[in-house]
Amino acid sequence: MSTTESTTPRLDVAALGEQLLGRWAEVRREARALSARPELAKIEGQPMPEHRERTLQNLYTLVEAKAVHRAFPSHLGGGDDHGGNIAGFEELVTADPSLQIKAGVQWGLFGAAVLHLGTREHHDKWLPGIMSMEIPGAFAMTETGHGSDVASIATTATYDPQAQEFVINTPFRAGWKDYLGNAALHGKAATVFAQLITNGVNHGVHCFYVPIRDEAGTFLPGIGGEDDGVKGGLNGIDNGRLHFSDVRVPRTNLLNRYGDVAEDGSYSSPIESPGRRFFTMIGTLVQGRVSLDGAATAASKVALQIAVTYANQRRQFNASSDVQEEVILDYQRHQRRLIPLIARTYAGSFSHEELLEAFDGVFSGERASDADREDLETLAAALKPTTTWDALGTLQECREACGGAGFLAENRFTGLHSDLDIYATFEGDNNILLQLVGKRLLTDYAKSFKGMDAAGMARFALRTVSDAVLARTGLRALGQEARDTGSEKRSATVLKDPEVQRALLTERINVTVSQIGRALNDVAKASSAEKARVFNENQDALIKAAAAHGRLLQWEAFTRGLEAVEDEDTRTILTWLRDLFGLGCIEEELGWYLMHGRLSAQRARTLIEYVDRLIARLRPHAQDLVDAFGYTQAHLRAPISSGAEQARQDEAAEYYRHLRADPNSPVDEKVLLKRRRAEAKAAAKAGRR
Amino acid sequence: MSTTESTTPRLDVAALGEQLLGRWAEVRREARALSARPELAKIEGQPMPEHRERTLQNLYTLVEAKAVHRAFPSHLGGGDDHGGNIAGFEELVTADPSLQIKAGVQWGLFGAAVLHLGTREHHDKWLPGIMSMEIPGAFAMTETGHGSDVASIATTATYDPQAQEFVINTPFRAGWKDYLGNAALHGKAATVFAQLITNGVNHGVHCFYVPIRDEAGTFLPGIGGEDDGVKGGLNGIDNGRLHFSDVRVPRTNLLNRYGDVAEDGSYSSPIESPGRRFFTMIGTLVQGRVSLDGAATAASKVALQIAVTYANQRRQFNASSDVQEEVILDYQRHQRRLIPLIARTYAGSFSHEELLEAFDGVFSGERASDADREDLETLAAALKPTTTWDALGTLQECREACGGAGFLAENRFTGLHSDLDIYATFEGDNNILLQLVGKRLLTDYAKSFKGMDAAGMARFALRTVSDAVLARTGLRALGQEARDTGSEKRSATVLKDPEVQRALLTERINVTVSQIGRALNDVAKASSAEKARVFNENQDALIKAAAAHGRLLQWEAFTRGLEAVEDEDTRTILTWLRDLFGLGCIEEELGWYLMHGRLSAQRARTLIEYVDRLIARLRPHAQDLVDAFGYTQAHLRAPISSGAEQARQDEAAEYYRHLRADPNSPVDEKVLLKRRRAEAKAAAKAGRR
Repeated sequence: MSTTESTTPRLDVAALGEQLLGRWAEVRREARALSARPELAKIEGQPMPEHRERTLQNLYTLVEAKAVHRAFPSHLGGGDDHGGNIAGFEELVTADPSLQIKAGVQWGLFGAAVLHLGTREHHDKWLPGIMSMEIPGAFAMTETGHGSDVASIATTATYDPQAQEFVINTPFRAGWKDYLGNAALHGKAATVFAQLITNGVNHGVHCFYVPIRDEAGTFLPGIGGEDDGVKGGLNGIDNGRLHFSDVRVPRTNLLNRYGDVAEDGSYSSPIESPGRRFFTMIGTLVQGRVSLDGAATAASKVALQIAVTYANQRRQFNASSDVQEEVILDYQRHQRRLIPLIARTYAGSFSHEELLEAFDGVFSGERASDADREDLETLAAALKPTTTWDALGTLQECREACGGAGFLAENRFTGLHSDLDIYATFEGDNNILLQLVGKRLLTDYAKSFKGMDAAGMARFALRTVSDAVLARTGLRALGQEARDTGSEKRSATVLKDPEVQRALLTERINVTVSQIGRALNDVAKASSAEKARVFNENQDALIKAAAAHGRLLQWEAFTRGLEAVEDEDTRTILTWLRDLFGLGCIEEELGWYLMHGRLSAQRARTLIEYVDRLIARLRPHAQDLVDAFGYTQAHLRAPISSGAEQARQDEAAEYYRHLRADPNSPVDEKVLLKRRRAEAKAAAKAGRR
Repeated sequence: MSTTESTTPRLDVAALGEQLLGRWAEVRREARALSARPELAKIEGQPMPEHRERTLQNLYTLVEAKAVHRAFPSHLGGGDDHGGNIAGFEELVTADPSLQIKAGVQWGLFGAAVLHLGTREHHDKWLPGIMSMEIPGAFAMTETGHGSDVASIATTATYDPQAQEFVINTPFRAGWKDYLGNAALHGKAATVFAQLITNGVNHGVHCFYVPIRDEAGTFLPGIGGEDDGVKGGLNGIDNGRLHFSDVRVPRTNLLNRYGDVAEDGSYSSPIESPGRRFFTMIGTLVQGRVSLDGAATAASKVALQIAVTYANQRRQFNASSDVQEEVILDYQRHQRRLIPLIARTYAGSFSHEELLEAFDGVFSGERASDADREDLETLAAALKPTTTWDALGTLQECREACGGAGFLAENRFTGLHSDLDIYATFEGDNNILLQLVGKRLLTDYAKSFKGMDAAGMARFALRTVSDAVLARTGLRALGQEARDTGSEKRSATVLKDPEVQRALLTERINVTVSQIGRALNDVAKASSAEKARVFNENQDALIKAAAAHGRLLQWEAFTRGLEAVEDEDTRTILTWLRDLFGLGCIEEELGWYLMHGRLSAQRARTLIEYVDRLIARLRPHAQDLVDAFGYTQAHLRAPISSGAEQARQDEAAEYYRHLRADPNSPVDEKVLLKRRRAEAKAAAKAGRR
């Protein structure tokens, strides 16, 4: 055994794989076994009508497999298991994102609205049919005119005390419900969000259970709709539009957990503030965001497992040898493209597990204080944009890294990209979600300075990280630049310190938030138009700070995750990967760190060099790292990662080996020319002698 | 008229539109009229077999419209017009990228191989059938095992002097020709690239005309193949694989412009060096890259015209007014997302026009020296990656900026993204092309220092831009940081100076290239493995420098373009846009500029603020800027930019206006609560009295 080998750590793929499966490992294993079934797999290029029908049928398959009822009440055959439900659900993405999302529409949105916004009577009446798919349903919240601003939807539900019915109406075209899965074809009912009006008062958005089609699939009176038609992806789902003209439903069809109307039309609610009531109702639907965070991470894992496997088998160009081409993952550029994405995906995986824990804590009631709920919402709003964008970036990079082969639908990247594209804007537009996180950061900032004077606030802006850490990190003002000494220059030691990484990542957020906080504070007493102007001037910076907050949360989860690794070698490799993740985040915003004196130019150069070194160091472990994701060929289903490329390379290498050994093989013109030039030179030399 | 209005410049949309059409305006107008024909328009979601058939039929439509013969010889009915041919061809992308690329396969690759690699006899024999689509053909260069490294393809063509035939063979599976348009179904012949072997010598890659199917569409003896199946996009094209087993073609089927085999098997070529011969042959096919640069820019224009129109009509959230929601392009974030992309697309448009000129110069023979050819190749290799990646980024950002509506296939973004995805890796993988540019930069660097000593080289690295410019720009070493004075601090004047922008953009390239040049120089006498190692260690930096070179070329073209604008107002606005483009490029690499002391921290802050100001200043002109692209609804074909959104907004606004005017309208619970609290307060006050 060579010295190199004996000092190179070895990753324990099985143990790490088990850790990545997380608390709900058993559920994930079951869900992965299910997702591996060929009848659930997406058929790329399948025309929309057939794909829709196949997806519908596969929802029944999920029912039969008892795969989708975990979150429902035990007394109706569910499991009251919220975290496990999401863990299993998100794994469906590897079979077909349309299947995942149509299941999400049925049980995670339509069903969850009845579960979380309705009460016992509603549960007993409708959940059994929803769980069994006897009642396929649509979740009718978004309208053509209002997606992000749900509070402003136009649909009205006006109470008629004579008939004891709500009358549902769509006042204009922009008020049509739009983009609803199950609305174009399969939905028999819908949970319709509408402005609840009773006794001349609009009590804001509430949710109503509304039958929309009869058994034959014909719209009921007063209901109309349209098919959304072909989409950029997820064409196994029948998205469509709905509109309502004097559609009457019984008073008791109001899902009345957070607001009720008595027979006489009087309104009551356990939550007095209409604003808080609205956000509480919406908050019960956070699981959509949680599950997209997990599904996006799963898709990134699949993509990387395919692309890294291929990059370790594919060869192109002779660089260091005349007889053997280079494995493409040995090119620095290829490493720079793929290995940081592995680090991101690990960060996404660890942070998703924590999100799932927080979600389960709230929904099981174990950790369900108001603060827990708020934290969960902020966590979901920070992570869902991060990982859904990461997935799109990863899928695109993997597709390009596999060249023409990456563009063949059979190799998965393009289909997953098309399907996951919408993940960036549904269940909360990513930019809007980050703005939400930014507002939370601003609120926390404001709270921490209640009563503090201007001087105190200025100090905060300059020093949000303890001086001890600052001293260690070299986070100094630019004026101290000159103190970078020779011995310090090349040392990456300081950058490996997790406290330094944490401090740098934290500074990025705190400094920006405090700057914006002060700008807003300056106009605290101005007109709302002026306040809006100043907020708008800082919107981009706030959203960027929120995105940085998402990265910090991921970094912290990654750090906690690797602390739990028992095998020393594995922990060493994962520590490099965590360092790559953290320092990579900093490298991406290097301009900010330099501009704000949080890194010296010399330190920045060291950082870049160290990132390169980390990537080179991780390169031999790339395959193990993606294999630990644990997907099998039945999930990957990509010919380029099936071993076919290795077989082709072996066959070609064998052919050329024979050719080189055969004296009758054609000689290369270049070789011939070189030989002739050498002969001519020798002849000339001989002539001179 | 208010003061603001009178000082706000006004864009001359018509004149700018005309300028953007460029030298081949007439051809573009014709091509746009053609692309507007409904029968050419892509049907989103059309199943692959029907889409393939439709695309095939539309190729005949292009023949009938005389739209695709401009580049062919006059004596065969062509126009000998190379620039015009590409200008017209690339416009087809707005109808259907599959149509563009299948036309490109037939006339730009298969036909162009016969034209540029063959000689008069070949032209007269095959071009008429190729032009008329009597002979649909495949361009059989890429193999499963070799895409980027064409010189290493495995297919052999061995000359048999007895029969005076070449015998074509595929030695192993990796040597199958792959990803070839027209190969799966429609191709009757192919231009096959193979290692030419005669008299025991391999003369490297040459091109052969090979019939592959009979009239009935059956493979000829010895030829086999496979369908590539569904792809991520471009499914109107029948890509497929071909392999050859002892397929014999006459000696004269060798396209012999750059290399010929006599009856006795002796080889001759006008280019002695096998390396130069190969690159000359490949160089004749540069038009693929040129046209992708143009098509990608056209797609970006379409996307932005749609997304900006929508962003100017769509409203969401109340920010500064209680009764009217904000137009989404008034949000800073939305401006930051879209307006820099307009700047990029203008840069892409101006630089493409220059590329087209260079291309026409070489292929018309007007400016066709070796240096001209080399420059053309470098220009194409720098611009094609830049604009194809820009197009994917622009399409994705536009899609997300339009939310759920952006995901509907009818609104174009997703289809264009799927179709253009492969543009990043075909006709030269973007990373490989940039590496080519990087190598050219290194060669130029080496040339400029032939014979210079180490001290001279070090000076070059420090000062590649003249001191006069350095003084003006504040491009100083970090030690001089402290000299930033108050008066300088907020001034963006220096950043508006085009010489400063040019100097900064140039420095980014020169410093990196000289660093890499010195690193390579240090190992100039080492083993080739060691040289390869050092090159590989610098690969990522070199590719980044090459990408920066692409941006500089675009910036220069943009600058020349705006100098040609006659209308003063238009020039003012375009100058802002050029500044946004140039400073935006610098902002993206701010870390580099700060780290290398080319910008002080203060200057960097000023730059960021000025970019924000430029975006705000350009916001009122965003619509004019995209309207100048000149595409009509027949090209855009996106319901969200048809005016439908404005009609929906107007209808909703009208409804709410009536509601506010009607005393019987329901009152908002929030308003009611506020009113009650006020009443209670008044009552309490009255009680105390």
